[in-house]
Amino acid sequence: KDSYDVTLLPGDGIGPEITEATKKVLQALCEKSGFEMNLNEALIGGSAIDAKNDPFPEESLKQCLASDSVLLACIGGYKWDNNPRELRPETGLLKMRKEMGLFANLRPAKVLPQLIDASTLKREVVEGVDVMVVRELTGDVYFGTPKGIDVVDGERVGYNNMIYSESEIERIARVAGDVASKRGGKLCSVDKANVLDVSQLWREVVTDVISKDFSDVELSHMYVDNAAMQLIRWPKQFDTIVCGNIFGDILSDEASMLVGSLGMLPSASIGESGPGVFEPCHGSAPDIAGENKANPLAMILSAAMMLKYDLDRPDEAQLLEDAVEVVLDQGLRTADIKQDGDNCELVGCVEMGEAVAKQV
Amino acid sequence: KDSYDVTLLPGDGIGPEITEATKKVLQALCEKSGFEMNLNEALIGGSAIDAKNDPFPEESLKQCLASDSVLLACIGGYKWDNNPRELRPETGLLKMRKEMGLFANLRPAKVLPQLIDASTLKREVVEGVDVMVVRELTGDVYFGTPKGIDVVDGERVGYNNMIYSESEIERIARVAGDVASKRGGKLCSVDKANVLDVSQLWREVVTDVISKDFSDVELSHMYVDNAAMQLIRWPKQFDTIVCGNIFGDILSDEASMLVGSLGMLPSASIGESGPGVFEPCHGSAPDIAGENKANPLAMILSAAMMLKYDLDRPDEAQLLEDAVEVVLDQGLRTADIKQDGDNCELVGCVEMGEAVAKQV
Ligand SMILES: CC(C)[C@H](C(=O)O)[C@@H](O)C(=O)O
Ligand SMILES: CC(C)[C@H](C(=O)O)[C@@H](O)C(=O)O
Repeated sequence: KDSYDVTLLPGDGIGPEITEATKKVLQALCEKSGFEMNLNEALIGGSAIDAKNDPFPEESLKQCLASDSVLLACIGGYKWDNNPRELRPETGLLKMRKEMGLFANLRPAKVLPQLIDASTLKREVVEGVDVMVVRELTGDVYFGTPKGIDVVDGERVGYNNMIYSESEIERIARVAGDVASKRGGKLCSVDKANVLDVSQLWREVVTDVISKDFSDVELSHMYVDNAAMQLIRWPKQFDTIVCGNIFGDILSDEASMLVGSLGMLPSASIGESGPGVFEPCHGSAPDIAGENKANPLAMILSAAMMLKYDLDRPDEAQLLEDAVEVVLDQGLRTADIKQDGDNCELVGCVEMGEAVAKQV
Repeated sequence: KDSYDVTLLPGDGIGPEITEATKKVLQALCEKSGFEMNLNEALIGGSAIDAKNDPFPEESLKQCLASDSVLLACIGGYKWDNNPRELRPETGLLKMRKEMGLFANLRPAKVLPQLIDASTLKREVVEGVDVMVVRELTGDVYFGTPKGIDVVDGERVGYNNMIYSESEIERIARVAGDVASKRGGKLCSVDKANVLDVSQLWREVVTDVISKDFSDVELSHMYVDNAAMQLIRWPKQFDTIVCGNIFGDILSDEASMLVGSLGMLPSASIGESGPGVFEPCHGSAPDIAGENKANPLAMILSAAMMLKYDLDRPDEAQLLEDAVEVVLDQGLRTADIKQDGDNCELVGCVEMGEAVAKQV
């Protein structure tokens, strides 16, 4: 295949800028590698609320499902923070995940040697850290029912159901087993099986799947409170981590912060089949939107994940990753990754994108 | 009042050793300060399972409820790890919390200048950190019903209800408001209100309580994933944190690990009235049990919290805390807090306890 349809979701805040920069890089890559990419934009998040009164309109869903892959920038902003739940940007994100069946979220937290001093952890603790968090993305307390706020015995009670079925656990365990076997071969499953029934089932099913079908993967289990500590104590003990939606939400963000350069981290959300969604881990940074200060590298690296996982172009993925490293080696830095006294050159979003495009 | 009944729960692993060391310190304190403490032991955890086939026997509960306060060492061990849920040490702990009505867990994470290098975070990031996590302890997905593992549509489904009532949120908000107003006056409430109904109610009720009755407390809100990051990025931004049971479980452990000396951290679990339970944050370390290697300081500092919160003896609490600081200043270290090349003297559990007792 040498022509791909990719949906771009620029979203809110710095989203449009980093999308523009990423587009330039992808165009350069296409020229260089001799394939075509049709990049078509669609609405999600706050901008979709403003235009269509829906954080993920039906036509965006249709366009995403009809494409080979989806590249999302970031969503959200103060403007919509006090909207009712159904008119909030995040609701669009959750709807997209559910309706596109994106049950697996892959979040690498890899320390780049050029940026190691950006971490608040000591150099010897973070040097060489390379953790992949595999987070379940369409189940758990995020989507469980019954849920709501009711009046019981004269007072309000709020509740959400933390729930997983065997088949939901099985399929995420398979993705995690697969990821782990292609990485260091070590998988740590995180749960709270000493307290929760849902975690007890989680642990059983993960153990079954890995022992039956991933004999090359070494499985361990850890309670979520301990995992939150161990990530800080000695992150190098981890290779691949698998967990449910809410524990994964917390631990993947914690792991991102360890490496100190959130502006650099990509993620992939994938399903059984059909297009995946690739997006940076960072937010929409409304305070610097439109000022040419944003860092486009996480979105560019998300495009690399897209090339690898969805478009079956691992060589081009590598090319992009290498180009980013070279630009960092050249000493170019956006404001978020510039350190006092690092002798690096401060550049804007546009310039950073152009530098990577040129390198490609 | 100058005579107190205190129940000691030595528990498992290193529990008996650190209890012994703490006892000596308390006896010295009583002599010095001219009051009496009747220290009576009771069973909990693995040792209670072995002796009574119950991780928190009725007679232990009765004895705890009849005393002025309870001092717990630590529970658990490999030996009981594969027991069914009702015969596991943790189950005893949960039962104790629920039946004694201990709905508020206070977990200070304070960096001691003597031990700052034990942290994996950079000195400038952790220097001066002093965070108090107020965790709700008898609600949430820990105790919510319905729960279980059922067969639905031919497959097993595991579930637990994440649930809070207004009155449960209100009382923990009051404790947190109180704690915050006696500390730096800043309270950060952590939830996941952008996704969960239960968190939406949490946020509303906390906002109400604090704005009505704690006008001197400055309240902010943070999503749990962001809190997990911010604790690592810049922990000094926090003064007091309040959260539900499961988020508090994760964040309080994360905060403990930041300061780098888990073996030093105490905690308090308190209710509306009646005795509280005071215990170290660390586990039972079965691998070093009985080898005179354990660090008794977290339990000694837990006794200080008991003096302050339950026995209304703030001066004696301060005395104990000062004694611990002096011993650290003298350069005494148990193995867990000894750093390579720190020129400190390695001592055992017994010696450490005696040193503090002497200082008192
Ligand atoms: C915005 C929010 C709903 C979302 C989540 O909790 O999943 C975000 O934190 C994430 O991790 O992508
Ligand atoms: C042992 C376990 C049940 C307990 C909890 O999750 O509350 C522990 O982690 C704690 O924080 O005291």
